[in-house]
Amino acid sequence: MQQPLPPPSGRFDGPCHLYPIRVHYEDTDLSGIVYHANYLKFCERARSEILRQLGIDQRAAHEAGEGAYAVAEANIRFLRPARFDDALIVESRAAELRAASVRMAQRVLRDGEVLAEVAVRVGFIAPDGRPKRQPQAWRTAFEQFAAKDPV
Amino acid sequence: MQQPLPPPSGRFDGPCHLYPIRVHYEDTDLSGIVYHANYLKFCERARSEILRQLGIDQRAAHEAGEGAYAVAEANIRFLRPARFDDALIVESRAAELRAASVRMAQRVLRDGEVLAEVAVRVGFIAPDGRPKRQPQAWRTAFEQFAAKDPV
Amino acid sequence: MQQPLPPPSGRFDGPCHLYPIRVHYEDTDLSGIVYHANYLKFCERARSEILRQLGIDQRAAHEAGEGAYAVAEANIRFLRPARFDDALIVESRAAELRAASVRMAQRVLRDGEVLAEVAVRVGFIAPDGRPKRQPQAWRTAFEQFAAKDPV
Amino acid sequence: MQQPLPPPSGRFDGPCHLYPIRVHYEDTDLSGIVYHANYLKFCERARSEILRQLGIDQRAAHEAGEGAYAVAEANIRFLRPARFDDALIVESRAAELRAASVRMAQRVLRDGEVLAEVAVRVGFIAPDGRPKRQPQAWRTAFEQFAAKDPV
Repeated sequence: MQQPLPPPSGRFDGPCHLYPIRVHYEDTDLSGIVYHANYLKFCERARSEILRQLGIDQRAAHEAGEGAYAVAEANIRFLRPARFDDALIVESRAAELRAASVRMAQRVLRDGEVLAEVAVRVGFIAPDGRPKRQPQAWRTAFEQFAAKDPV
Repeated sequence: MQQPLPPPSGRFDGPCHLYPIRVHYEDTDLSGIVYHANYLKFCERARSEILRQLGIDQRAAHEAGEGAYAVAEANIRFLRPARFDDALIVESRAAELRAASVRMAQRVLRDGEVLAEVAVRVGFIAPDGRPKRQPQAWRTAFEQFAAKDPV
Repeated sequence: MQQPLPPPSGRFDGPCHLYPIRVHYEDTDLSGIVYHANYLKFCERARSEILRQLGIDQRAAHEAGEGAYAVAEANIRFLRPARFDDALIVESRAAELRAASVRMAQRVLRDGEVLAEVAVRVGFIAPDGRPKRQPQAWRTAFEQFAAKDPV
Repeated sequence: MQQPLPPPSGRFDGPCHLYPIRVHYEDTDLSGIVYHANYLKFCERARSEILRQLGIDQRAAHEAGEGAYAVAEANIRFLRPARFDDALIVESRAAELRAASVRMAQRVLRDGEVLAEVAVRVGFIAPDGRPKRQPQAWRTAFEQFAAKDPV
């Protein structure tokens, strides 16, 4: 019988969350390196997995019309290129928690070397597009993440 | 004053619709050629522009909960690679019109040379995901497209 | 110390290879379902992981100028939509091995239900774009994959 | 006979370059809005078209091994969401020209309303990945762009 084979969710490591990514063909461009916009995708995948591990069901919230996170600001520094077939880690920290938004500090690493630094501010948005207080359970979950002790 | 600068919608040419595409960095992979899945994107852009030119407002239909087209089948032959900076044409023909679906024959060309052939069947889908008869106005528009005389 | 956290490579299961995928925001479109072209990306990720597990280093071959696989033909049937947050499995079988190409039969599944069937023919291509016999080690590896006993 | 149908390159408008973009299915996510990373793609398309209009052949430079631009830094503010079917304009200005890099200030607009502000620094990179002085012809072209009079 086919056993379950779950996709990776990464893991918490003290105040950080670590999420693994393999660079596939789709991620590269003709320069042979990862296309710059794709680092934002990698970081977004990691943020979704953090929410999942904190017990937050983004899909249920979306379907119930409660709202969703939307990126309000992103500042990226590209330090070294990632290449096809690289095994990367997205490292994420909660930087600031506010009523309707969260700041995260993320880094994309390869073998401990920082390839990109990404600072994002993510706002909670009602289905009509307006900013909205995020659910209390989400804030509590993030507070726990932000307060985790360093290893 | 800034004059309007509309994005391209392509144009009808006898029984065909022609839609221009420039290959950008995002479309290529490390092989230096267009990543294969992106030909499906190119063809989908062309189909959306055909609908627009036929007077069909996909967004209004989606927002009104009427439904949307979804690709049910796609058969693609990749004959020659497209490269960064190429100016391509997506040529589309209506191949078959049915109550709840349409077949289109599409080709991606560069300087008259066929790079890829794409046959798609697109079904009309209600918001709950079930097949649904497409709106009569849409069928009529496609009939007109399918019946256009060769040049 | 940070422990290694490798990205998933999936696993062989009799004559099949199984590879897990999580549907992220980037994969969906406004219909709330996975954008059709992305199934080709999912299948390509799985094929790359099969090569890796068979001991084939695509990146070294590309950098050494030996060549790379390129998709020559893809036939896709979209049966049921995948949605945001779904945990999917890409199941792959070797269907035919030839001197310069391979046919693979792939399916995208959710909880054992088939969402899409993808038949691809992948050719081995020299850096100048011409078909080329694939390396003997690659053929041998695929033969072993194709010959695996059912569980 | 089929007449040429070139893809759009946008146009200069005083010190700005304006480039039109249609939002297609591929650009949206299940929130119904443009996925945030895709604004970086839109801006990159515009930068490539600026180079083309300034007479710079990126592909020839890449193929000749001279080098290519790579994004070194990007700061994005997402102000209002773009939606499916929107007709957008990417407005670009040269902000700073240095020996091995260029700063551009870009904005994505819909009907004159700013949806996103994107500040990028793009470095010229040799094929081995190291920063390199950009070709003199490229610097001269950018100087002309930067010096254009307001309308």
